[in-house]
Amino acid sequence: MENCIFCRILAGDIPSRIVYEDDAVVAFLDINPAAPGHTLVVPKEHFNTLLDVGVDTIGPVFSSVKTVAELVKTRLEADGFNLLVNQGRAAGQLIEHFHVHIIPRYEDDQRGLMPPKLDLGDDEMDQIAEKLRSG
Amino acid sequence: MENCIFCRILAGDIPSRIVYEDDAVVAFLDINPAAPGHTLVVPKEHFNTLLDVGVDTIGPVFSSVKTVAELVKTRLEADGFNLLVNQGRAAGQLIEHFHVHIIPRYEDDQRGLMPPKLDLGDDEMDQIAEKLRSG
Repeated sequence: MENCIFCRILAGDIPSRIVYEDDAVVAFLDINPAAPGHTLVVPKEHFNTLLDVGVDTIGPVFSSVKTVAELVKTRLEADGFNLLVNQGRAAGQLIEHFHVHIIPRYEDDQRGLMPPKLDLGDDEMDQIAEKLRSG
Repeated sequence: MENCIFCRILAGDIPSRIVYEDDAVVAFLDINPAAPGHTLVVPKEHFNTLLDVGVDTIGPVFSSVKTVAELVKTRLEADGFNLLVNQGRAAGQLIEHFHVHIIPRYEDDQRGLMPPKLDLGDDEMDQIAEKLRSG
């Protein structure tokens, strides 16, 4: 897509630090890293969001995500990593070309992603579950 | 696995608020939610971590993740959602049975997951990219 910054990176029109490529994806360093080695995995085909990714594409894309995650963990000698997908602007999606963040993690690195937990009570939890079950 | 709390939930030995099930996964509410509707998608087959998920399984599992994410977004009328995978204890993985967090998001809900960005400088970024490329 002409106005998509990730499509332009994939086309080589915008420079990036590409670290991996296969048939399904390209992976490059996030220029605004949440941790050293923060990598984006981007499908070569343009999909606005995860929910737009075709049923035949999601398997190959996440296989590649796993490959890149393993590479990040091994080569940067990380203790672990987070995968993060932001779907929609409210969730922090800045570029409308589906991508997966891989964030290398080390013991006590203070880069935790999970927001503080809420105490919702049984009744509210039951109501939410009922909504999810029955639509 | 006998000592795995998620295997015991899947077997029905421990109660949970199950909201979705198909051939590949079961999804239930996280009892320590980061947001109302925080849902876990858990493969029926036991894998310790994402990196242990077999190549034939990753496609079906993430297809199901997408299905559950769409259901969460629609039925809870969310503006978006985050998918989060924590690989390893350093990354916040508490249960050693691979699972994907789906966290519904709303405008201005203050539930952002991304840690503050770092300013690493071009040289450090280049060095990291080189490490990732060449092993």
